Parts: sequence; structure tokens; C-alpha cells
Amino acid sequence: MSRQFDRFIAYDPGKTIMSDKAPWITYRPQLKVLDCTIRDGGLINKHQFDDALVRAVYDACVAAGVDYMEIGYKNSEKQFPRQQFGPWRHCREEDIRRVVGDHDPAATGLKLSVMADAAKSDWKTQIGPRRDSVVSMVRVAFYANQVSEAVEMIQHAHEMGYETCANLMSVSAVSETEIDTVLEAIAPTPAGVVVIVDSFGHLYREQVDALYRKYAKAVEGSGKEVGLHMHNNLQLAFANTVEGIILGANRVDASAYGLGRGAGNCPMELLLGFLRNPKFKLRPVLKLIQEHLLPLREKMEWGPLVPYNLTGQMNLHPRSAMEWRDGPRKDDFTAFFDKIVADV
Amino acid sequence: MSRQFDRFIAYDPGKTIMSDKAPWITYRPQLKVLDCTIRDGGLINKHQFDDALVRAVYDACVAAGVDYMEIGYKNSEKQFPRQQFGPWRHCREEDIRRVVGDHDPAATGLKLSVMADAAKSDWKTQIGPRRDSVVSMVRVAFYANQVSEAVEMIQHAHEMGYETCANLMSVSAVSETEIDTVLEAIAPTPAGVVVIVDSFGHLYREQVDALYRKYAKAVEGSGKEVGLHMHNNLQLAFANTVEGIILGANRVDASAYGLGRGAGNCPMELLLGFLRNPKFKLRPVLKLIQEHLLPLREKMEWGPLVPYNLTGQMNLHPRSAMEWRDGPRKDDFTAFFDKIVADV
Repeated sequence: MSRQFDRFIAYDPGKTIMSDKAPWITYRPQLKVLDCTIRDGGLINKHQFDDALVRAVYDACVAAGVDYMEIGYKNSEKQFPRQQFGPWRHCREEDIRRVVGDHDPAATGLKLSVMADAAKSDWKTQIGPRRDSVVSMVRVAFYANQVSEAVEMIQHAHEMGYETCANLMSVSAVSETEIDTVLEAIAPTPAGVVVIVDSFGHLYREQVDALYRKYAKAVEGSGKEVGLHMHNNLQLAFANTVEGIILGANRVDASAYGLGRGAGNCPMELLLGFLRNPKFKLRPVLKLIQEHLLPLREKMEWGPLVPYNLTGQMNLHPRSAMEWRDGPRKDDFTAFFDKIVADV
Repeated sequence: MSRQFDRFIAYDPGKTIMSDKAPWITYRPQLKVLDCTIRDGGLINKHQFDDALVRAVYDACVAAGVDYMEIGYKNSEKQFPRQQFGPWRHCREEDIRRVVGDHDPAATGLKLSVMADAAKSDWKTQIGPRRDSVVSMVRVAFYANQVSEAVEMIQHAHEMGYETCANLMSVSAVSETEIDTVLEAIAPTPAGVVVIVDSFGHLYREQVDALYRKYAKAVEGSGKEVGLHMHNNLQLAFANTVEGIILGANRVDASAYGLGRGAGNCPMELLLGFLRNPKFKLRPVLKLIQEHLLPLREKMEWGPLVPYNLTGQMNLHPRSAMEWRDGPRKDDFTAFFDKIVADV
């Protein structure tokens, strides 16, 4: 039984059936899905979503059997003032509770997550005890050169009682030696998950494979899971997520209608249509899309548009493409191509 | 050296460098790209493209270094009358020459292809000698139960002097035993290529792998190449094409901006951004998109919209989704979901 086909069918709690013949119709019960619709989507509009939308995403996650909903960032109110940024950039407890009430993970099957960025979070004062919060998990996002702070943040959040997760960003732009050093630093921390984060949407299949094997080897025997957070610049976010799942990743990020910065994320409606665990339901996500995200798409832009294709191919931050799409020549793709070819 | 990493860098015609360390920056010179923009896209509008668009696609193919352009179908004028269907459904020689002149494959580096459907083509009378035509290749499309006619069509086109190609359609809905029988029938024919055709856009990575291995084994030692024609219902057309390339497929279909029936095809702009053969140029495809396909997309719909996601997931012909998108409730995704779940 190769690792590649290491999926399980568990109809009967006492009996596990394995198959390597048609693994695509089987599943691993330990695979967990995280919704990052609000957290990642808020990078487009400074997290100025109204409460009704956040509640609709929450309701859809509960109904769809999604395991985690990342409701926003736990970032600094000094760096991201409330006058300019919506509440999901800071995730005050009162804001979360206004939308989800006294959320009960056991009753709903859903845990809430927040993300804290290294160098952008007042984590020592803002991440308090879990017993006072409806949040279950803190994910720490960091660049390679911020790994020391990330280790402290993970330790702090763990001591406060949260599940923790280490998200090294923009991995396609980090050298292999630096990735190795980051993984060595993260391995001894209490982080339950280490996530492969393709911020630039640059990775092709063989690169996902190489990174998965590197991450899996680094955390082998530690009980840590490998996670995936893929961007859709090359229309590969879903494919790369499936690839990681085949290899053994048990934590995967997705967002409804792919909502997320730039090209967006792995679309939840594609992911749930692929996963065979009967606890996952597709229909609530479709309802969320037609009632809330189609109207939102009229006002805000995301998705694998040509300028994002190009920054993905060239392993660039999507920033230049986002600026181009906000400018007067947004559909002049050859001019954008000429510009970024000249710039690199 | 595994087959998976069997790519080549051939900077020097006399010297071939191979690498399995970072195969994604290498290439196989024998890999050939076919543009199916007009042929597949015409299934949306009954091939009523104006000559200027067809010429623009032709010019882009030449400038981009694409190997084949499939300019349309060679199907019956009785079944598809000229009053209702545009000239690219029949590809009369005079229509092709009106657009491309006395096209010269050697001078342009581009060969022209036409597709003939079993049971829809008057091939005995309509496919004449290659010496009288600017077309180089005839691709025969057929369902499994039409394989006998397909073999005759391939033989006829071969005798007329054309390169030939066998395209078993809707492979995700054909049993493995039937696929084996089709491949046994095609193997002794003069067809130079056998194409894996995912008409429903249903295939996931592991299924592509299984089919590729089946096709490759069936044609082993015959000199035939395996080709790929992927639809984008699940945003996997590009990923599945890359997968097939990694495994060894040397003939791949794509279309500019993914133009094609329903969810469309593998986008040429993504494919050329991935291929490392310096003969391929991306910029002419971007120019084609911004000048011709963005305006066309305002009038005609294609792409991986939610209803196509759903037919892809359920391994259905996209017909029901196309009809839904033409109806009054086109954005009522839950109603469409409920309908097709009830129908299967």
C-alpha cells in the first residue's frame, strides 16, 4: 500500500476498508477542511464585510460540515486602525460573538480560527486565554526571516490553550535551505499543523510534490499534520490541493467561490465535490455563493484573471497585478506582460 | 530515469541534457501543441465566427509557435446546413483558403487540422487528397460504439495523405473494457496519435494517470503518441494536461482564453506559460485575448461556472448546464443542483 493511495473508507467504526484500486472514491476520515473565505477575502476590501455576510459564511460552514472557519486576522489595531479596517482584521471577541453568539464547537462541529501575522500582531496582549474565547485555533503566518517571532507566537498561543498552526508564507520564493531551517525551528514547537502556503500561486504539480515530501519528512513522528493553502493564479489551486491530499496532507484550506486576494483560493465548491466523506455537504456552499458571493463579485474582483496568471507564472507577488486591475488599462494584458518582463 | 521525469533540454542540436532534479524547468522538444479555439469554441455558436476572428487565431498560432491549429469540423453539410451553421463546421477548402491563403506549413511552422465526427461526416466524399488542401491532419472523433466507422475514417484519411488522430470522446463515461476494445481496434490503424478526451471535464489526477497508462501501454512500440484534450469543468483542464505531460504525453490540446463548449478547454495562455521550449511565445496569445476574446466573451459564455462544476463532478454531459445557463434561473445554483441530483 503506497502512501499515495493511503485513503480509507470507514463505513463501520469498528472496521476500516482500504483500497488502492479507485482511491478517488474513498476518503480519509482524518482529513479536515478550513474555510478562509472571510480571512483571505478581507485582503481585498480591508475586511470591511458586513455582519450578515460573515454570518452567512458561518452558517454555510456549519451546514456543509466544514471543520474550521477562519473568521479573520488577529492583527494590530495600531497598524490597521479601526477607522480604515473592518473588524475582521482584528477579531475582537465582542465582534466575533456579535455574529456567531456563544458559538459551540461541539454542537456545531465547527471550530473557529484566527490568523496572526508576525510583525503585524500585538499577540502578547491581544491573544488571551482560550477559556474566554469562542476561538479554538490560532494560525501564525510569517515570512522565513520572521521564524523566531513565529515560534514565540506559537508558544504563546499554545500556552493560552489554543490549537496552533505554522504558516510559512510565499514558499515558492524561499530557498530550499531556508525552508529547511524554518521547518527545523517549527518542528519542536507545539504547532499541530505546518502549512504549505503558495501565496504567489506559482507551484506546479512536481513542486507541490517536492515541498510536500520536505514538510512531511521534517514533521515525521511529531504528530504534526501537513496542511495546504493554495492560490489560484494558474487555475491550479484545486489541483494542487488534490495533489497534496493524494500525498497525505490532512489539513486543507478553501474558500467559497474561491474568494481571496488576487486570483483567490481553492474553491470550496470544487473541494467538497471531490471529498467523499459523507459528512461534507455541497449544497450550503452553493446557496452561499448564489445569495451572497455573486452579488459581492459585482462590487469586488477576484479570480484567475490573466494578470494573475502572469504573476503566478513569473513567481511574483500578485501586488503588481492587483494594481494593474485597479488602473485605466486593466484589460491591456500585453502592456502588463511587457511591464513585468521588463521589471524582473 | 523514471518516465515521469523524462524531459529533455536540447540547447544544442548535437547534445541533449536530461534532468530529474527540477524537471519543471526543462522540456521535451517532441511535445506538440494543438490549438482548438475555433473548432471547440464553435460548438457554442454553431461555428458562426467571422473571418477576422479566425484569421486572428491563425496569426496568433503562427506567432506563438503553436504546432497545429484545428480550424473546424469536416462535418456533413446535410446534417449541419449552411443556413444554420457557419463555414467552420464544414471546412470547405475555399473557406479555409479565404482566411489563410495558400498556407505553407514549412514557412509558418504551423499545420492545419480538421476534425471529422463519426456518423456526422460525409468523409468518403468530403475528405479528398491532401495535395489539394492546405490541411495537414484529420482528427477522427467518435464514441466507443462507433469505433468501426472511426477505423475506416482513419484509413481513408491516411490514404488521402493526411496525418491522422483517433479521439475517443467522453472517456470518463466509457467502461474500462470498452476502452480496451477501442484501443485494440485503433492500435493497428495508421493513426499517429490516440487522444484521451475528457469531454465531461470529470477526470481527477489519479484517473488521468490510470488512463494515460492504459493508452500508453496499448500503443507501446507502435510509434503512436498519446494526446490530451481536457475540459475545464473542475478547473482541472490545465492541471490534467500538465499531469499527462509529466507522464509522457507529447500531444496536447489547448484554446486561447479556454474558449470551448461549456466550461471550455485548457487555456493556451496557461499552457504556454508552463512549457519551457523557447519556440513557444506567450505574448501573441495575450494579444489575441485582449483584442478578440474579451469582446467575444461579452456576447458568448464559456468557462468553469458553477453549473459546469456540478456536471463535471457528477460525470454528466454539460448539456444540462448549458441549457440552465440559457434559462431564466441561470444563477440559481441550488435549483440546478437539486434538479441534477434528482435526475441521476
